[in-house]
Amino acid sequence: MPSFGERLATAFNGRGHVCLGIDAHPFLLEQWALTDTAEGLRTFGLRAVEAASGVVGIVKPQIAFFERHGSAGYAALEDVLGAARAAGLLVIADVKRGDIGSTIDAYGEAWLTPGSPLEVDAMTLVAYQGVGSLAGPLDRARANGKGAFVLAATSNSEAFPVQSAVLQTGAQHRSTVAAGIVEEVHAINAGDPLGSVGVVIGATVSFDDYGIDQGLLASTPILAPGFGEQGAVLASLPQLYGTAADNVIANLGRSVLKAGPDGLRGALQHEVDELARALAA
Amino acid sequence: MPSFGERLATAFNGRGHVCLGIDAHPFLLEQWALTDTAEGLRTFGLRAVEAASGVVGIVKPQIAFFERHGSAGYAALEDVLGAARAAGLLVIADVKRGDIGSTIDAYGEAWLTPGSPLEVDAMTLVAYQGVGSLAGPLDRARANGKGAFVLAATSNSEAFPVQSAVLQTGAQHRSTVAAGIVEEVHAINAGDPLGSVGVVIGATVSFDDYGIDQGLLASTPILAPGFGEQGAVLASLPQLYGTAADNVIANLGRSVLKAGPDGLRGALQHEVDELARALAA
Repeated sequence: MPSFGERLATAFNGRGHVCLGIDAHPFLLEQWALTDTAEGLRTFGLRAVEAASGVVGIVKPQIAFFERHGSAGYAALEDVLGAARAAGLLVIADVKRGDIGSTIDAYGEAWLTPGSPLEVDAMTLVAYQGVGSLAGPLDRARANGKGAFVLAATSNSEAFPVQSAVLQTGAQHRSTVAAGIVEEVHAINAGDPLGSVGVVIGATVSFDDYGIDQGLLASTPILAPGFGEQGAVLASLPQLYGTAADNVIANLGRSVLKAGPDGLRGALQHEVDELARALAA
Repeated sequence: MPSFGERLATAFNGRGHVCLGIDAHPFLLEQWALTDTAEGLRTFGLRAVEAASGVVGIVKPQIAFFERHGSAGYAALEDVLGAARAAGLLVIADVKRGDIGSTIDAYGEAWLTPGSPLEVDAMTLVAYQGVGSLAGPLDRARANGKGAFVLAATSNSEAFPVQSAVLQTGAQHRSTVAAGIVEEVHAINAGDPLGSVGVVIGATVSFDDYGIDQGLLASTPILAPGFGEQGAVLASLPQLYGTAADNVIANLGRSVLKAGPDGLRGALQHEVDELARALAA
């Protein structure tokens, strides 16, 4: 069974580094002439998958928008996840789950178990309770050929004080919180050309502000929000991520989704080509 | 409309400080002679609500166990939440959601909006992206008479390095991450006898290790995991939380749930009485 890292490398080689963020904002539903209902979200997600198929290799549904509609929203989500996986897309559930013990195990079971209703290829995780608290889903990911992305340095400015705080104890003491997570994930991926546990580092942040060593990202996939509406431009990706640029998944949501259901495919292709040129330069 | 803090104070006065954690661990489902299915979880949750009703004032369903079963699990959860609220229990959804902008707004909408399928009285939140990133659900809570609990110092040992890291910037610089969150929440609750934004501080941690000032918790509800199976005892609650003891919600899960569906009510009553004695002493 190929690992998630191996499957991600294949996706990079075949379809490039752009990921479509399936973000069913109420304003986009309206623009796409859909209702803000579970049924509207289902249609939105299925059309987004259709547009992404054959153009990008990765999609990232934002689960919060489905959760607004409770169990009916989750039923719509199941259909969207199934369609995306059937289309051969790598699916990253943006759920930002974090907890401890049997509870975080349950979240891992929900998203990273073959055959489960919400099965995806990878999920996002939050390590406020320590990277060690995430051992359950990280072990499960490895066993099942699945992946995970742990939030490190995110793209929003309110995050900076917490993520740049300095650890006083533990194996990463004197590192910032974000750099400590990068170090712990590096150790998990050691030995793999591209590992199965990634980190989230926003395209709007500076590595230096957190003391993050790009050399420790050599085997680590990087999920990168911040492009498009949040201000970063794809052409700058090689400068922003330096030696780690080839491991970056560049997420695009609103900035391409606003092209509408008929324009989305073309908008995505344009971005894929632009990023490929930038990475080849 | 009474605020969440006012409703919590009423619950404390009427039924004491114990909260039943509705934790549908697979091993408990088996012990309760239920299947590990959405239907089994529905029955587990409804029986737990029945046992809690009239004995405690607060329940805290752990959402992860429902999420394992996808949309069917969420449909079961909706029934459990509805039954709990109909029984007059304050319901805290333990979801530990955290994100930014319109995404965290969507989570707040899902759980803290009157009439939404997953409506509860309060939800748990994670501030890895900064307390400022949680403004959406915190504002929504205030507007709707709802509440929230932000993780500060949790009960698991792997959490200590991150939560004791020292902030280098921002209004709380030089505080630890956990103490900074306590300070920010204190400012939000200022002026209320008991505020509507709480923090999570485990019963297994020492305030001194994080530099948390108990005086800044005078108006802040404290959700306290760590009692029972995790090792802390209810009789020690006044010593553990000091001047903030009267604001504590003492969560009990496995340690009472293992009494089985018929023994749960009696086990809960025993703990309620024990804690009332300890707080009165």
